[in-house]
Parts: sequence; C-alpha cells; structure tokens
Amino acid sequence: MSRDMTMVRIYLSESDRSKNHNTMKTIFQRLHDQHKVHGVTVFRGIAGFGGRGQVHAADLLRLSVDLPLVIEFFDESETVHSALSWIRDMVPPEHIVFWEVRTLAS
Amino acid sequence: MSRDMTMVRIYLSESDRSKNHNTMKTIFQRLHDQHKVHGVTVFRGIAGFGGRGQVHAADLLRLSVDLPLVIEFFDESETVHSALSWIRDMVPPEHIVFWEVRTLAS
Amino acid sequence: MSRDMTMVRIYLSESDRSKNHNTMKTIFQRLHDQHKVHGVTVFRGIAGFGGRGQVHAADLLRLSVDLPLVIEFFDESETVHSALSWIRDMVPPEHIVFWEVRTLAS
Repeated sequence: MSRDMTMVRIYLSESDRSKNHNTMKTIFQRLHDQHKVHGVTVFRGIAGFGGRGQVHAADLLRLSVDLPLVIEFFDESETVHSALSWIRDMVPPEHIVFWEVRTLAS
Repeated sequence: MSRDMTMVRIYLSESDRSKNHNTMKTIFQRLHDQHKVHGVTVFRGIAGFGGRGQVHAADLLRLSVDLPLVIEFFDESETVHSALSWIRDMVPPEHIVFWEVRTLAS
Repeated sequence: MSRDMTMVRIYLSESDRSKNHNTMKTIFQRLHDQHKVHGVTVFRGIAGFGGRGQVHAADLLRLSVDLPLVIEFFDESETVHSALSWIRDMVPPEHIVFWEVRTLAS
C-alpha cells in the first residue's frame, strides 16, 4: 500500500549561477527532461543564510533581493542518487539534504 | 521529552478540483474541522511539475498561473492515516508523501 | 560520502512575539550569531492553523494578515539540541518538529 522513496531538498539562492546559467533553472530542467522524476517543486524563502553566514532577506524597502530558493523532489533511491551525482558538482554538498519517505503509490 | 508523529506533504496545483470544489480548500477544511490535526500549513511554490511532466511556473509576464501548492501537516500516526484514507480519493497517491518525525511535545 | 544531520521545522505565525520581540527574527538571529548553524531558511505559508485551531489565510480582500511562518534549519544533532533548549521556551513544544536526514557533505 506504500512505496519507499527518497526525498531531497537543495538550498540555493536566486543569484546562484553555474557556468553562466541560473543554477535553479538548470537543475529543474534536467530533473524534468533527463531524469523524469515524479515531481519537483521550487519554493522561495523570505529570509535565510547559508554556509558563509550571509543573510538573505526580503523587506519592504528592498523589493528585489537575493532570496533563498529550495528545490524539492522525490523518487526512487536509484533515480535520486543518479541525479545527485551531477547536482553535487553545481551546489555545495552541505546544501543537499535527503531522507527516506513513503508515498501511497502502489 | 519527545513524541513520535507522522509528517505528511501533499502536492497539488492551484487549479486542482475535486467534485467542483477546490481540492486544497476541501482538504484544509476537513483536516481542521473533522480531524482537528495539530496544525496544517499550505505553501505555494514558484515552479514545479507533477507526474504528467507539465511545468507550472511564475514569471513576470504571466502573473496569474497555475502554481504548485503543498499542504503540510503532522499528527499521531493513527490520525494521519485516518485522514489519508479519504485524501487518497482526491489526490493521486504518488502525490502524498509521509515520514516519521518527533516533536518536543511531552 | 554522506553525513547524518538533524532537520528542524518550527511553526510560527507572523504576529508571534516573545518578550516584545518578533519571535521569528529572534530565533533567526540567534541561530546565525550564536549557533552558527549550517543554514536557516524561513518560509511564509499562504494558509494555516495551529494548535488553537485558528485559521490564518491570505486572500485578495485582506492583503495584510497574520500568515504562518516556518523556520527550517539543519545541523549536527548536538548543535540542534543545544538550540532547541532555548527555542522551546519561546515556542509551544508541539510546534517544533525534527527528524534525521543526510547531507552529501563529507
């Protein structure tokens, strides 16, 4: 009645670039086109900081700031780890978190 | 000092309907009124795709699009599975993910 | 190739105050300055309710409402539990959820 899956969350910020391309869009597109994972959702945070301790936050006076983004997806462990093998070249490894979940899919 | 709970995330999009009602609002209302779960939070993503591979994204030129929604809630395993027994009739089962967590509640 | 971490999600609402200070900002600042955790991201939900069953939601006619906030962070178990020891004095304990994850950090 349920199936084991691996959930991933990848922490980026809006300005992240990899070889001149937007990191979020590159990861999103390859998860869609190449890995055909079950689903991907991208969330924008309202404040955050990463490994370097820099604070990213939205406030009323600065409408356009470098906000945190999270890419979330899940699929079978093998598909996930195949995707992480190239994502880890684009994102600091401590920004990639994963854990086991279950879906109701049979 | 801590208590086992089951966390659930349900992946929808803004346009999802079930018997002519907004799926998100229907699930939200029943979790509140009928199951009285500890808490429910609904998040809107900025981009996503689901099982059919359709991309949902917000950009500056199309302000009103069909964005991804996630309903998140947690409670004791029994309460969660009682809720999932009807939610699974409204949402594709591979869009419902759950895992074990702990709260600090005693 | 991977490292165990503890993930935390803390459920607040925008109006939460602790000793006259904004609860979200106080927690965010101390996680940054004192605990130097790997990363913190704050998300705003579009609807939610907590332990008291009050619904918080954004709609087109009420632009300024008391929306749900989630503070998410992860780090080694010891660092997380050191932070939770004072966070639990500011937030109802059933609003603090944690679980084990892994990062790709070596």
